[in-house]
Amino acid sequence: MSAKSPSPSSPRNELSRRLGYAFADPALLERALTHRSYGSNHYERLEFLGDSVLSFVMSAELYGRFPALAEGELTRLRASLVKQDTLAGVARQLGLGESLLLGGGELKSGGFERDSILADALEAVIGAVFLDGGIAAAQAVVARLFQSLLAQLDPHAIPKDPKTSLQECLQKQALPTPDYELLETSGDAHHQTFVVECRIPELALRTRGEGSTRRAAEQQAAQQALAQLGTK
Amino acid sequence: MSAKSPSPSSPRNELSRRLGYAFADPALLERALTHRSYGSNHYERLEFLGDSVLSFVMSAELYGRFPALAEGELTRLRASLVKQDTLAGVARQLGLGESLLLGGGELKSGGFERDSILADALEAVIGAVFLDGGIAAAQAVVARLFQSLLAQLDPHAIPKDPKTSLQECLQKQALPTPDYELLETSGDAHHQTFVVECRIPELALRTRGEGSTRRAAEQQAAQQALAQLGTK
Repeated sequence: MSAKSPSPSSPRNELSRRLGYAFADPALLERALTHRSYGSNHYERLEFLGDSVLSFVMSAELYGRFPALAEGELTRLRASLVKQDTLAGVARQLGLGESLLLGGGELKSGGFERDSILADALEAVIGAVFLDGGIAAAQAVVARLFQSLLAQLDPHAIPKDPKTSLQECLQKQALPTPDYELLETSGDAHHQTFVVECRIPELALRTRGEGSTRRAAEQQAAQQALAQLGTK
Repeated sequence: MSAKSPSPSSPRNELSRRLGYAFADPALLERALTHRSYGSNHYERLEFLGDSVLSFVMSAELYGRFPALAEGELTRLRASLVKQDTLAGVARQLGLGESLLLGGGELKSGGFERDSILADALEAVIGAVFLDGGIAAAQAVVARLFQSLLAQLDPHAIPKDPKTSLQECLQKQALPTPDYELLETSGDAHHQTFVVECRIPELALRTRGEGSTRRAAEQQAAQQALAQLGTK
């Protein structure tokens, strides 16, 4: 920005241009690009924030775009958009790697090309845009970055999840939807295991699933039920 | 609302009052209270949306409230606020159960008192407020509903997660932070298993973790590393 240091800010100016967003506080963008190997003012808190901003913006976008899709299908589409390799691809198109601030070890081992660092930094950049310009600015940046991915989305190309498949299978037999009951939670807050039972009283069927989220456990229980119904 | 049907809308008016939000489109609130056992115009899509609105609002709130907390600690605090039993407690204080629309079977089995239904419907109500009044309205409702929980939050009362503990333990020995590498992903989009390796080259230590999210797998790998370091 200043005449004294033209070179370090120039890839960052280019990044700003590609984002379609000019930061009022450029220090926020710098922090979003700083890996913990480079310094203590790194991007991890911004990544926490940006992850939830991105998930919210995508959820609202998908909700509006696909009025006929069920919750499970929307969840699946969102997962395909915010998973690490998708985010790393978006970060590469932005040229984010060139602007990253990495410590010596990460630099030597090619950290600027690694999926996990690129995806995390992209989330941090989205968090920084939100802090700098509010949710509308973050929404505009996400819409711009994911424009072509959103345009290509085909809900039918993604296989149905077990809960949706089970529900459709029961509906065809004019049976009510299964009941999912949480039987057990173990482990500490960050490291929990959930055990869920799927019940279809009309078929005298009970199956169990386990996972690190309640939804994952429900999907596994539904998968077991599908297997017992012989439809898998 | 209208003189023709005073009784069905009256618990819902009371709910609106407690939320501190008057819906421009009351049909949205009705949908947020409709369980799938009652009808096809049920709350599950709104729950998808509300879950992400709630997570975003909480993330922004915690980010601002706790400027000194690391990402892992913020994640842990957020998890404690949006987990099923916390949400069900908030729903009970709202008297949400009285306004739920449940089918016969759910009604008989006490669905209006069940944690999973109460938590899901609360998320749907938050999604409905967002659709009706925008993100600022949703933020105000969440702030009101979680006011006392947020005021009571004590970051020190929640045990540290394994990744944070491991990092602090290595810092005390003046060692760099560990590297987490995703080795393997298997399963379909909704039902994935992640295998992550935690590497501490300075100690010639490699451990593995597995989970249904990348972060859960990292936590497990960090837990293993802590165990090998004898600090657990």
